[in-house]
Amino acid sequence: MQKALEQLKEFDAEIKALEEVQAVLEWDQQVYMPERGVHGRSEQTAELATIVHQKNTNPAIGDLLDKLDASDENPLGSADLDDDDRRLVRAVYRDFRQATRLPADLVSKIARVTSVAQSVWAEARRKSQFKLFQPHLEEIVGLSLEVADRLGYEEHPYDALVDQYEPEMTTADIARVFRELREGLVPLVRDIAAARQVDNSVLLKAFPVDKQEAFSRTILEALQFDMSRGRLDRSVHPFTTSLGPDDVRLTTRYDERFFPTALFGTIHEAGHGLYELGFSRRFHGTRLASGASLGIHESMSRFWENVVGRSRAFWHHFYPVMKTEFPDQLSGVDLESFYRAVNRVEPSLIRVEADEVTYSLHIILRFELERMLVGRELKVGDLPGAWREQSRDLLGIVPDNDANGVLQDIHWSGGAIGYFPTYALGNVYGLQFASRLREDIPEMENLVRQGDLVPIKAWLDEHIHAVGRSRTPRELCEEVAGESMSARPFIDYLKQKYTDIYDL
Amino acid sequence: MQKALEQLKEFDAEIKALEEVQAVLEWDQQVYMPERGVHGRSEQTAELATIVHQKNTNPAIGDLLDKLDASDENPLGSADLDDDDRRLVRAVYRDFRQATRLPADLVSKIARVTSVAQSVWAEARRKSQFKLFQPHLEEIVGLSLEVADRLGYEEHPYDALVDQYEPEMTTADIARVFRELREGLVPLVRDIAAARQVDNSVLLKAFPVDKQEAFSRTILEALQFDMSRGRLDRSVHPFTTSLGPDDVRLTTRYDERFFPTALFGTIHEAGHGLYELGFSRRFHGTRLASGASLGIHESMSRFWENVVGRSRAFWHHFYPVMKTEFPDQLSGVDLESFYRAVNRVEPSLIRVEADEVTYSLHIILRFELERMLVGRELKVGDLPGAWREQSRDLLGIVPDNDANGVLQDIHWSGGAIGYFPTYALGNVYGLQFASRLREDIPEMENLVRQGDLVPIKAWLDEHIHAVGRSRTPRELCEEVAGESMSARPFIDYLKQKYTDIYDL
Repeated sequence: MQKALEQLKEFDAEIKALEEVQAVLEWDQQVYMPERGVHGRSEQTAELATIVHQKNTNPAIGDLLDKLDASDENPLGSADLDDDDRRLVRAVYRDFRQATRLPADLVSKIARVTSVAQSVWAEARRKSQFKLFQPHLEEIVGLSLEVADRLGYEEHPYDALVDQYEPEMTTADIARVFRELREGLVPLVRDIAAARQVDNSVLLKAFPVDKQEAFSRTILEALQFDMSRGRLDRSVHPFTTSLGPDDVRLTTRYDERFFPTALFGTIHEAGHGLYELGFSRRFHGTRLASGASLGIHESMSRFWENVVGRSRAFWHHFYPVMKTEFPDQLSGVDLESFYRAVNRVEPSLIRVEADEVTYSLHIILRFELERMLVGRELKVGDLPGAWREQSRDLLGIVPDNDANGVLQDIHWSGGAIGYFPTYALGNVYGLQFASRLREDIPEMENLVRQGDLVPIKAWLDEHIHAVGRSRTPRELCEEVAGESMSARPFIDYLKQKYTDIYDL
Repeated sequence: MQKALEQLKEFDAEIKALEEVQAVLEWDQQVYMPERGVHGRSEQTAELATIVHQKNTNPAIGDLLDKLDASDENPLGSADLDDDDRRLVRAVYRDFRQATRLPADLVSKIARVTSVAQSVWAEARRKSQFKLFQPHLEEIVGLSLEVADRLGYEEHPYDALVDQYEPEMTTADIARVFRELREGLVPLVRDIAAARQVDNSVLLKAFPVDKQEAFSRTILEALQFDMSRGRLDRSVHPFTTSLGPDDVRLTTRYDERFFPTALFGTIHEAGHGLYELGFSRRFHGTRLASGASLGIHESMSRFWENVVGRSRAFWHHFYPVMKTEFPDQLSGVDLESFYRAVNRVEPSLIRVEADEVTYSLHIILRFELERMLVGRELKVGDLPGAWREQSRDLLGIVPDNDANGVLQDIHWSGGAIGYFPTYALGNVYGLQFASRLREDIPEMENLVRQGDLVPIKAWLDEHIHAVGRSRTPRELCEEVAGESMSARPFIDYLKQKYTDIYDL
């Protein structure tokens, strides 16, 4: 038994190291690779993907899992193993089962189809013509259904797809929480729209990019993002990635005439980065050194970005710092005006530009459409119309063209159906965790007002970061928040915050 | 036969792609990796090295080579194959033979021993105590002898070691050329020492690092180094590496108070980079897309750095450009004074700081010592004394301590014995090629005076770069220079250039 465990850990360490190598290639491609390097890089990526796939589906892993008594009924394996080891066995079992259920030719077909679909999507979006993309999306929906069948599900094929990103989460779970969200958010957005609007002209002034970056680094330091274990670079699409247990890199992009992009983007990515840097050292070199799920990951980034980074307490400390860096741009703008400006709410067409209140509505829209597509209740050809309808119902506005509507996101072209809900779940989990954090550290707001973020990070390190993937999202939510997933804390938080800001 | 060839090419492409991945990891580690990423990176590197070693020694390659009739007597394989394919077979045969002759436990022992030796060497150099490093070097010399025995040789074990870096080159070949070099260089250095010295005070002025970099990029553009297929970054130890067929990256370092470090360092690395970018597209994705040898590679870097970059014609065009960028620093310094300053000759202790004339003497010193160590004519313990003696004979100066003498280079601690000669062979080949180039383009000097480097690069692309590893260095030298390796063109070039500069 012990020998089987050691061998399993060796396989696991090999896979982990190779996945980090994949992350190095990907990071480099997004950040520093010269333009024409792309063809050679795709050869390298494909070669490495083949090797990683072989290692992930190595039948020897199946034999070891058998020896360790892991099964669908008993995913944690033998009770003779210690607790950490059982959780590792569960993670390996899950990944091995998922990987071996998908035949190699299906996996490579998906890679081929989505590779073409992504470039067609880019062209379709440029021309704002959904018709161009439609046959590719039809093929992708078909392949997703095949994936769902292979992976297996109990009620709805969408369950299998969501489970890839948010383990054990079902369509019914999401529908329940999204109903709560919708019922809370739609009237709130309506009330805000009827109130006196916030002046956000300060956000549109010119902030030189180099100074924005310097200020972002100041904030990263306050967030205790350790630059001896990480970096901040620039890329077209911001992301965070782990190139090793002590090598976590953030990227952001800068818009001279809209500083919130980089500033809140950096805080958001730092939330992901602190999570990745916070895994317990005893999990390093194993697959438990990763996030519990995409939703949990997103809870960390959104907590820092919105709950901390867009709070009055935060700017009480950092606005004076920012004013010394940008005296001209911020002259005549007091703290309260600045605070309101960075929290301006307005329904808009583009998800990635949405504010904290309307963002989840963009996700609900996508969830409804994905669920219907996968459930064969909606044809791909009817998607643009359905999108407009949902947009009217949820946001009260309708896109003028496909580029600003159904074609705005890259996800579907890459085959990621079932991914979107995790973004909104991040909001939900985040406030469940924050409620517990407030109970444990009642003086939290005062600490933030003094610019002291150390206790918050320490609390997250202990309760969430360190735990890594040793808990499922469901377990983590129960353990930390003391309840199952609920949108109530998030709705309450928004109501309180925006009633104040908009004098509702 | 054709099927075997196709399979061999597939294996070759896989290995090539994975070696490029190794280059990505190494480049990132030297250039952007955060400090504490080093432990994780070494796990990744080790994992990848294991995979590459397995692929390189895959017995299936041996079977394919048999089918293709490749053998020691017939390395090009079956005469039924076309010319390019036979040259690929020869390269694969050579690498497979070398890789399989070294047992895996010897390879991993060398990795372990040199890993420790490198950190001990760094400490020994810091403390300038050879005794600390001595037992490690003794072990490395022992392991090198074992490598030589495994690889096989006819006359001298050093032959086998040199052959790793400069295929088919023997100790006797090198000794012959180095004798020519020594006989030409020692009197030249003596004559220069007796002449009126050149004023190089302009080199020691402050040149802001950012402006140095901008000027380096101007020069790179004139050299036609294509930034859509490459990059220039900073690292502690400058290097050039290929991350893919269209992704070649240079690094340099900047010294505000000695601009030649970055300026000529960048031109040197660009010489390597143009070689790597110039391989024929039909070799891309195969191991023929690499340099013919380290000596040939160095011939390209030194040709651009010294023969072009330190020529009067080059500065005739670029000095006015440089003066507009650095008007204060260069005020009152005319072209002729600048040209002489960047060509100042003076025997010095440190190889990497040596000028064009004395550099090869540093290499001859190391060659003599390596040959004796490997031939068991010199004990490692007697190395510091032997170094001082050689230094006196060759350069006329003696290091005051081990750090400035026997401990100055990292190479031995990494197990690279037999590598140094390739540096001097670069000088030798470079002028053999340049002589042919001058015959083909008689107006070369005039073109350079106008800043037009296009015909030179085109000539190198055609005769050297494109050829890649499809020729052995011996073949390439014969084909391009029409003669076997000879130091005569290099000696003649130096005599002519420095007789003029120093009024000898």
